Amino acid sequence: MANERYALIFSCEDQLGITAAVSVSLEACGANITEAHQYNDEETGQFFSRIEFAFVGDVRIDELTNKLQSVAERFEMEWEVRNLSLRKKSLILVSRFDHCLADILYRWRIGELAMDIVGIVANYPRETYQHQSFDGLEFHYLPITPETKREQEGQIWDLVKKHSVDLVVLARYMQILSTELSARLEGRCINIHHSFLPGFKGAKPYHQARARGVKLIGATAHYVTQNLDEGPIIEQDVERVSHHDTADALVRKGRDIERRVLSRAIAWHLQGRVITSGPKTIVFSD
Amino acid sequence: MANERYALIFSCEDQLGITAAVSVSLEACGANITEAHQYNDEETGQFFSRIEFAFVGDVRIDELTNKLQSVAERFEMEWEVRNLSLRKKSLILVSRFDHCLADILYRWRIGELAMDIVGIVANYPRETYQHQSFDGLEFHYLPITPETKREQEGQIWDLVKKHSVDLVVLARYMQILSTELSARLEGRCINIHHSFLPGFKGAKPYHQARARGVKLIGATAHYVTQNLDEGPIIEQDVERVSHHDTADALVRKGRDIERRVLSRAIAWHLQGRVITSGPKTIVFSD
Amino acid sequence: MANERYALIFSCEDQLGITAAVSVSLEACGANITEAHQYNDEETGQFFSRIEFAFVGDVRIDELTNKLQSVAERFEMEWEVRNLSLRKKSLILVSRFDHCLADILYRWRIGELAMDIVGIVANYPRETYQHQSFDGLEFHYLPITPETKREQEGQIWDLVKKHSVDLVVLARYMQILSTELSARLEGRCINIHHSFLPGFKGAKPYHQARARGVKLIGATAHYVTQNLDEGPIIEQDVERVSHHDTADALVRKGRDIERRVLSRAIAWHLQGRVITSGPKTIVFSD
Amino acid sequence: MANERYALIFSCEDQLGITAAVSVSLEACGANITEAHQYNDEETGQFFSRIEFAFVGDVRIDELTNKLQSVAERFEMEWEVRNLSLRKKSLILVSRFDHCLADILYRWRIGELAMDIVGIVANYPRETYQHQSFDGLEFHYLPITPETKREQEGQIWDLVKKHSVDLVVLARYMQILSTELSARLEGRCINIHHSFLPGFKGAKPYHQARARGVKLIGATAHYVTQNLDEGPIIEQDVERVSHHDTADALVRKGRDIERRVLSRAIAWHLQGRVITSGPKTIVFSD
Repeated sequence: MANERYALIFSCEDQLGITAAVSVSLEACGANITEAHQYNDEETGQFFSRIEFAFVGDVRIDELTNKLQSVAERFEMEWEVRNLSLRKKSLILVSRFDHCLADILYRWRIGELAMDIVGIVANYPRETYQHQSFDGLEFHYLPITPETKREQEGQIWDLVKKHSVDLVVLARYMQILSTELSARLEGRCINIHHSFLPGFKGAKPYHQARARGVKLIGATAHYVTQNLDEGPIIEQDVERVSHHDTADALVRKGRDIERRVLSRAIAWHLQGRVITSGPKTIVFSD
Repeated sequence: MANERYALIFSCEDQLGITAAVSVSLEACGANITEAHQYNDEETGQFFSRIEFAFVGDVRIDELTNKLQSVAERFEMEWEVRNLSLRKKSLILVSRFDHCLADILYRWRIGELAMDIVGIVANYPRETYQHQSFDGLEFHYLPITPETKREQEGQIWDLVKKHSVDLVVLARYMQILSTELSARLEGRCINIHHSFLPGFKGAKPYHQARARGVKLIGATAHYVTQNLDEGPIIEQDVERVSHHDTADALVRKGRDIERRVLSRAIAWHLQGRVITSGPKTIVFSD
Repeated sequence: MANERYALIFSCEDQLGITAAVSVSLEACGANITEAHQYNDEETGQFFSRIEFAFVGDVRIDELTNKLQSVAERFEMEWEVRNLSLRKKSLILVSRFDHCLADILYRWRIGELAMDIVGIVANYPRETYQHQSFDGLEFHYLPITPETKREQEGQIWDLVKKHSVDLVVLARYMQILSTELSARLEGRCINIHHSFLPGFKGAKPYHQARARGVKLIGATAHYVTQNLDEGPIIEQDVERVSHHDTADALVRKGRDIERRVLSRAIAWHLQGRVITSGPKTIVFSD
Repeated sequence: MANERYALIFSCEDQLGITAAVSVSLEACGANITEAHQYNDEETGQFFSRIEFAFVGDVRIDELTNKLQSVAERFEMEWEVRNLSLRKKSLILVSRFDHCLADILYRWRIGELAMDIVGIVANYPRETYQHQSFDGLEFHYLPITPETKREQEGQIWDLVKKHSVDLVVLARYMQILSTELSARLEGRCINIHHSFLPGFKGAKPYHQARARGVKLIGATAHYVTQNLDEGPIIEQDVERVSHHDTADALVRKGRDIERRVLSRAIAWHLQGRVITSGPKTIVFSD
């Protein structure tokens, strides 16, 4: 028990004494800081911090929470304390291309992504993923057409509510969420877009990239908002390409970028390392 | 003499026997191929090639050119043979920020960029670059205002004509060339744009990048066309940034990307390694 | 049939007329070159080339092979013509860590690695890989101890012979092959070493990397030779790390590097893009 | 004055209350934390931190130093408070290749490297660097032979003492410092080695890299110690190369890596972002 890690994540207006007040509270409860990040946004005057800690002796989390409550009121913080050993509940949405799904499941099985997967939703039937082991995982085949979109999203939303889902992952889910569902999932829905945003928004980004003749292609993991491909960016990466890469070759190279970018974004989200600030994110990466 | 390198650069419709015809001509004149690249664009059916060669015995360049002329007619090639030891004449344009200029001059002095610099044009006075040695180089202070733009561009064009300039480098020249001058310089004017195009076209791209919260910033070297920031891309590169990078920090990190991207593009252009194909380039990089 | 791709791979002493002789033979048989690479090693005077082609009309491969035989004799070439649609037979060896295996199988299933997997050999039992689908693949549990090493390698060798194996992949197979088996598999056995060679040879390279305090870690795919970790390098890649990365974190980051480096090396080997030249490789990558 | 930035850099055994004690002292003196990093080395149980701060009202640095003195005694810290606006005194040593020198001077002139350059020492005469402006900088031509090495190093040491030099930069200074001088400069002498250490120690690393056939080359900035090429690594970077890169091409590509790696290491050292811990560094990079 005493080795459990917690994370205090907070933001407020930057002012004198924040760190002192927080760290005195932590010390008073026997909480040793094991990792700490802070960021002072000089443009907005906002202060953001993530402090990971463990109790040296007894776990005095309630006492600590009370103390932090006072500090938070004094500095008008938005704040949260999380027990990092409690796993987030995740729902994964996928379409025909399952490279991101396969990657997430592998990382999850070997413990790299510490989360509870409460279900997989696909708009393709189970046999599309016949070589993937879903052993112990709920699989929901929820096909979608323009006519059934409202209903299908209702089924997704039911799953989110039923399982108290903390994170919805669009693992190359090739459907655009409605404005309504996007709004309901704000801050807890991560999409992987197969371009280096803001370049090549919308459909067929690799074909757009080839048409424009770029020399690097990329992928972007971002929180879903009501504005398509405009949500806060969590992570991006790129790889070098050249004139001789066909659209197929770009798709192939892109798969590698997509899966590593998405898995980093998921890991950071699960560990409370991502704070959104308007259209942007602060990422206290490990 | 016999060690001089030549490059045959050509394109035509892809068809049987191109390489055979060209290589037989080369062999017949005692020209040994030292480096060869080709690219078959399956979308357009076009064939592009660059063949570097040296004569084993006597230099029989006129004889070879005649033979290649016949081959070119047969296959309806666009073609060119260049003596790579003949240096291209370059004119460098710069504004207040001179990191690309400093970098180009350094590489030129140590022989990394084999070209003749026929002049430096700046819209800032000589003292702006006081710590740079222009020893032996013509410096032209050509200030520009909206009213004098036409006249100033006339002076640039005069320099281009006077020196038979093969390459105009916009080394962070913060003026938009007129449609007219852009057209005149098409295919021989390289600009460095300080973003990873097509993201963040136009002014203040690093500020745009910060506002959007991207996790990588980049730079793009491209041929100047009449459409601003839309010309064929020659080279791009990126570096990782994060939320804590201020606009100033992005500018600082960007300088390193800009100068290496621009110098690569210049080097490849000088060596005849870049072929434009519509809105794109084929780059047979070394 | 007519769309089948072939590759001519050859090396010889550099001399006038090689390309002419080869390309005339190709043209004479109606073979259109679709991709071509060559490399003149100025240090050794050796010439290396890979030419991909397809027949425009009838497949005249026997006629072509005869013609090329004459050319090869004239220039004293080592040469090979391969029908790229014929899949190589591969045997994959794995130990406890199966991230490379999982990655290879995924890429193979979606057609990214075009090969026939004739078997998987593991020194751990089937349940170690319980979530991996080996549907249709032979799985051989061949445990190994110092005492049984000779015998176990005999079993591997029997599989190689039985299936006429073209490629043995050591996909994090944590056993050192004997000098004898290494010699037998020379040129057709690829290992992934989890360091950026030549740094950190031998055991526990990530721990060595952490002890030395390097700022990047890497992985190396190389052909296995009798000298451990000294074989010709096919591909390498790295990722940035820092002081706060524990050995476990390095292992985690390393998994991503290993799998992409190994899969690139396999793909290039399968397509005949790798030519060994003494202790080094020439890689005509796509 | 009130906007001056200070940095508290310290290390001690990890224990409860360090951050609380330090941050309470800072708050008590009106010092607002603007950037903070910490690192708990779980292997050694050591705690490292760098806290940047500015006084909100009056500068109360003496009062703060007194308070921190008590804290430091309580936790047995090694510590230092630095006024970041006071520039470090640097001496730059160079041999024939001056790309790192040119780069450092450029960055210094535009304010990217905030230091006072008290002199340039070269074992080649002034005309070797004829196109570099040393305006206002002392240039010392100190040639060296095996016989005069002891004497020449004495002259360097005299300069270090005379100017109270905080940092000696070996900017491709192709001489091995004696054990004695290395010891005297420990912790304040940065070298750029032109390989990705620990690969290719010693002489001609690019030739070693070519001989081994690596697919990436790199450079390493490290503190100089008495063991050649074994000092704590501050920064490293790499670039992709291939079989067709001659040793000359590697040298050319290497120049770009060397200069950016060295300049990052210098910048981080100047800002107190590098803490050595035995054979390694902790780098709290910006």
